[in-house]
Amino acid sequence: MTTHITSSTRLGKLLLAHQHVLTTAESCTGGGVATAVTDIAGSSAWFDRAFVTYSNEAKIEMLGVKESTLDTWGAVSEPIVEEMVLGALQHSNATMAVSISGIAGPAGGSVEKPVGTVCFGFADSAGWLMVSTQHFSGDRSEVRTQAVEYALTILCDYLGERS
Amino acid sequence: MTTHITSSTRLGKLLLAHQHVLTTAESCTGGGVATAVTDIAGSSAWFDRAFVTYSNEAKIEMLGVKESTLDTWGAVSEPIVEEMVLGALQHSNATMAVSISGIAGPAGGSVEKPVGTVCFGFADSAGWLMVSTQHFSGDRSEVRTQAVEYALTILCDYLGERS
Repeated sequence: MTTHITSSTRLGKLLLAHQHVLTTAESCTGGGVATAVTDIAGSSAWFDRAFVTYSNEAKIEMLGVKESTLDTWGAVSEPIVEEMVLGALQHSNATMAVSISGIAGPAGGSVEKPVGTVCFGFADSAGWLMVSTQHFSGDRSEVRTQAVEYALTILCDYLGERS
Repeated sequence: MTTHITSSTRLGKLLLAHQHVLTTAESCTGGGVATAVTDIAGSSAWFDRAFVTYSNEAKIEMLGVKESTLDTWGAVSEPIVEEMVLGALQHSNATMAVSISGIAGPAGGSVEKPVGTVCFGFADSAGWLMVSTQHFSGDRSEVRTQAVEYALTILCDYLGERS
């Protein structure tokens, strides 16, 4: 469980310094960010829960994602990760959140959204909201690992710039 | 993310064969079981969500764990993992669930519940309910890895005996 230890350690220190509590809403990474964050001793100070919403139903029920948004844009889309990340903030006591929805493969890809397409949402309780789409290469495990690392890195960079 | 690939692969096949959908309610493993299960391609057929309930508040709000049970027994106890696993079944569409609450360390241990103490709950919609307490040795990462592997193994064994 130590793949992301450097980034997780850095993120833990930054969250603690900024007195932020993080939550995650994860689809294709299946809880990988939550697992990485809690690999660090003392993480209960900056982490209290995560929503692993693998199915569309879970995204609707746990995060309040709209069925109409899923119908219009699909689960792997920036509108969905935006709803996921805001839903995660709303359904927790966290002050910072990240959401991830992507196509880890090997199946599920299309011309428009090939395998390796991963959408991210980032938000905090002070009004930060950012969505982005990344295209990772490699097999299922490599796509998931890169997605977790990207999420941790963006959070670190955002907090690091404010230190 | 491939530490548990053998057990996860086996569990995926068994869940699929038994037409079970799994959910997890995880505290000290922080989503490690969910991450392992979703490492397998096609896992959306046997997995739809997970509850990473790191704080007591998350256990209460996401799973319906009773505050009085937390007060009486503590978060790392068999009564709590029983409430967690039944809560996970109740708050999902899954037909099988596992819950985990333990002391991964290095802090948080006591004479009664030393570091490495991990409680597990297992249940399915047909009435299976089992709780157990294990004592793992090693550092934080090793305790978490063993806890994830134990959960996967018990689920495999249970389903395997019914194949």
